[in-house]
Amino acid sequence: MEISVSRKAHFNSAHRLNVPSWTEEENKAYFGTCNNKNFHGHNYDLIVTVTGEVDPVSGYLIDMKQLSQWIKEEVEDKFDHKNLNLDTEEFAQLNPTAENIAIVIWRKLRGRVQQNLKLKVILYETERNFVEYNGN
Amino acid sequence: MEISVSRKAHFNSAHRLNVPSWTEEENKAYFGTCNNKNFHGHNYDLIVTVTGEVDPVSGYLIDMKQLSQWIKEEVEDKFDHKNLNLDTEEFAQLNPTAENIAIVIWRKLRGRVQQNLKLKVILYETERNFVEYNGN
Amino acid sequence: MEISVSRKAHFNSAHRLNVPSWTEEENKAYFGTCNNKNFHGHNYDLIVTVTGEVDPVSGYLIDMKQLSQWIKEEVEDKFDHKNLNLDTEEFAQLNPTAENIAIVIWRKLRGRVQQNLKLKVILYETERNFVEYNGN
Amino acid sequence: MEISVSRKAHFNSAHRLNVPSWTEEENKAYFGTCNNKNFHGHNYDLIVTVTGEVDPVSGYLIDMKQLSQWIKEEVEDKFDHKNLNLDTEEFAQLNPTAENIAIVIWRKLRGRVQQNLKLKVILYETERNFVEYNGN
Amino acid sequence: MEISVSRKAHFNSAHRLNVPSWTEEENKAYFGTCNNKNFHGHNYDLIVTVTGEVDPVSGYLIDMKQLSQWIKEEVEDKFDHKNLNLDTEEFAQLNPTAENIAIVIWRKLRGRVQQNLKLKVILYETERNFVEYNGN
Amino acid sequence: MEISVSRKAHFNSAHRLNVPSWTEEENKAYFGTCNNKNFHGHNYDLIVTVTGEVDPVSGYLIDMKQLSQWIKEEVEDKFDHKNLNLDTEEFAQLNPTAENIAIVIWRKLRGRVQQNLKLKVILYETERNFVEYNGN
Repeated sequence: MEISVSRKAHFNSAHRLNVPSWTEEENKAYFGTCNNKNFHGHNYDLIVTVTGEVDPVSGYLIDMKQLSQWIKEEVEDKFDHKNLNLDTEEFAQLNPTAENIAIVIWRKLRGRVQQNLKLKVILYETERNFVEYNGN
Repeated sequence: MEISVSRKAHFNSAHRLNVPSWTEEENKAYFGTCNNKNFHGHNYDLIVTVTGEVDPVSGYLIDMKQLSQWIKEEVEDKFDHKNLNLDTEEFAQLNPTAENIAIVIWRKLRGRVQQNLKLKVILYETERNFVEYNGN
Repeated sequence: MEISVSRKAHFNSAHRLNVPSWTEEENKAYFGTCNNKNFHGHNYDLIVTVTGEVDPVSGYLIDMKQLSQWIKEEVEDKFDHKNLNLDTEEFAQLNPTAENIAIVIWRKLRGRVQQNLKLKVILYETERNFVEYNGN
Repeated sequence: MEISVSRKAHFNSAHRLNVPSWTEEENKAYFGTCNNKNFHGHNYDLIVTVTGEVDPVSGYLIDMKQLSQWIKEEVEDKFDHKNLNLDTEEFAQLNPTAENIAIVIWRKLRGRVQQNLKLKVILYETERNFVEYNGN
Repeated sequence: MEISVSRKAHFNSAHRLNVPSWTEEENKAYFGTCNNKNFHGHNYDLIVTVTGEVDPVSGYLIDMKQLSQWIKEEVEDKFDHKNLNLDTEEFAQLNPTAENIAIVIWRKLRGRVQQNLKLKVILYETERNFVEYNGN
Repeated sequence: MEISVSRKAHFNSAHRLNVPSWTEEENKAYFGTCNNKNFHGHNYDLIVTVTGEVDPVSGYLIDMKQLSQWIKEEVEDKFDHKNLNLDTEEFAQLNPTAENIAIVIWRKLRGRVQQNLKLKVILYETERNFVEYNGN
């Protein structure tokens, strides 16, 4: 029988939505104020969920401190107080929409969390807009 | 690989729970204070979730501004600052329980959101009571 | 030295903003959709704050259970799942704006809380609109 | 077509994480400050979700008052303002991790909620750590 | 007798903390990652509070729609989805700390809200950091 | 002109309310389930507010990192994952009511924060119960 364990984290970043192959007008029309060339920013809230079997001895699915450490190293250390477009390799070529940020975070954490455990991420760009990705 | 994108909205309405085919006593016994004949009301919070493939060029699953506009036209313009029982066609005959309101909203948005995208709604009647419906 | 102790409560009510001495058009122009003749409603959140000296023996300013009971009797029992305009004496003649509801609640609780303690109420009509009243 | 209805509850408890078959050092290394022999505590938030078909007459999936009563009897009356390790039978032998508490609550409520309805619980140990269990 | 009425708003901006008269090393040492030359960003939450006498006829202290419109024109239209350092006159020379942003917003709204009403602003830079300013 | 800057922190502790000079029955009657001899616990949320003049050069009232460090050393390191009654000197003789905890925290931080700055603490014992203390 499976259980899911979730950990919440956050990071504050600047970003700009822009597709280089589109004209300036097309980008402005599609992304609106999110295309502002000088960037804007968000307090991103991240929920990472890991699913699997509880260890019958410890009563833990996963050591939360370990999961927090992975989130710190893979997400917070790389994205917090950064400009996603200018300061990160991940979004140098990739448009930093909430969808793409969630997928990138999922892939980075997938390399850390044991493969027998399922992984899901929820990313809040604002309190009213959020995305969810589980790799399926 | 699928991703889900969610948008939060809200509306403030009056309503009353009542089944016309039941006696006044049966309604009072079953619905309690929710049956009050002069109505009561709620700040409803709505989360609309759309699931599908991310567009590889834009990095969007769906244009959030488009989704917000549909929610405005189908839900907020019709239900906000209204009496659900008296001011709406949808609940003239249908008991406006949280369950039925969620189903009605899902059907209205299903007519707007592209058919290749899955649709789910979560409706909070209060911070402590909420329902979820995805049409399956 | 003074300390403040606060207790949160809530109630769900229908209401309508309307000034009888104004014309229908004046009311509609001033109160907008809040004037809807069939009512709308809210989940009201109430924070009651009492200020005074801590009892050096018990370490309490006031027994929270006592304060909760007063809030239940004076506010929840009278306003929860009610139509403020139609079901209450307090708002039969008084326009149930957030301001007036807060003042009415403050006066009702003022009659209960010991006179050597200061009293303040904060009333949230929605998450984004709230009022504060302390009788000064 | 299925709908899910959720109810939020809470309880405040003391607990300590400890595996009796491990040495004091092993427990300290694995559980860190959660192993403190004098206990620490949490405000647990619980969300209970029931899934099934809406009754076409009442418009209810389940009577929320009934569900609340079951949560009160099975969870709040037993765990609120208690020491989970010392005051409850359930965790006399079982390590009260969030995972185990969620599983125990699920089993207790499973005995109350009708078998044709699916049941899920989400348990928040803190705002940043939570678990989810549905018996599958 | 006075009452306070509050309205919540928000805006998403990029910014960078930097004092031009300091060396790069001094700025980095003092502001840490907030000094990142490529900016970072926040979801700012703003609470604007107005205090004065309730109008005995309307039961309003102030028309919330009017207050919302002023916040939109003075704050949201100017700061939302902007880079505070590069896109605004206000912070071209002034370091956009939460303190300074709150003071700037207060001054701008002070020019709109009637002088017989007191004005206070609370600005959340994150859920855990916020400032309050009332001009006294 | 003064501004206030606030920082939120939290700690998870076990406690028990008890007055040694009262009989067991008196304690049980007055403190109810909070008197449970085996303790219960809470996730305490703490908001520390500092008030004074903004530095015209840096635009800071106080370095938030410094304030956070003081809160960590004076509050989190001492109370988090502890039993307030058994593991702390502060509450060995003093009843750990929310009122007393807030006063103790205020005094500890008062020794750190510069004397020209005003200091206030708000302590949430639960989402619905909280206290505020500023030393006046």
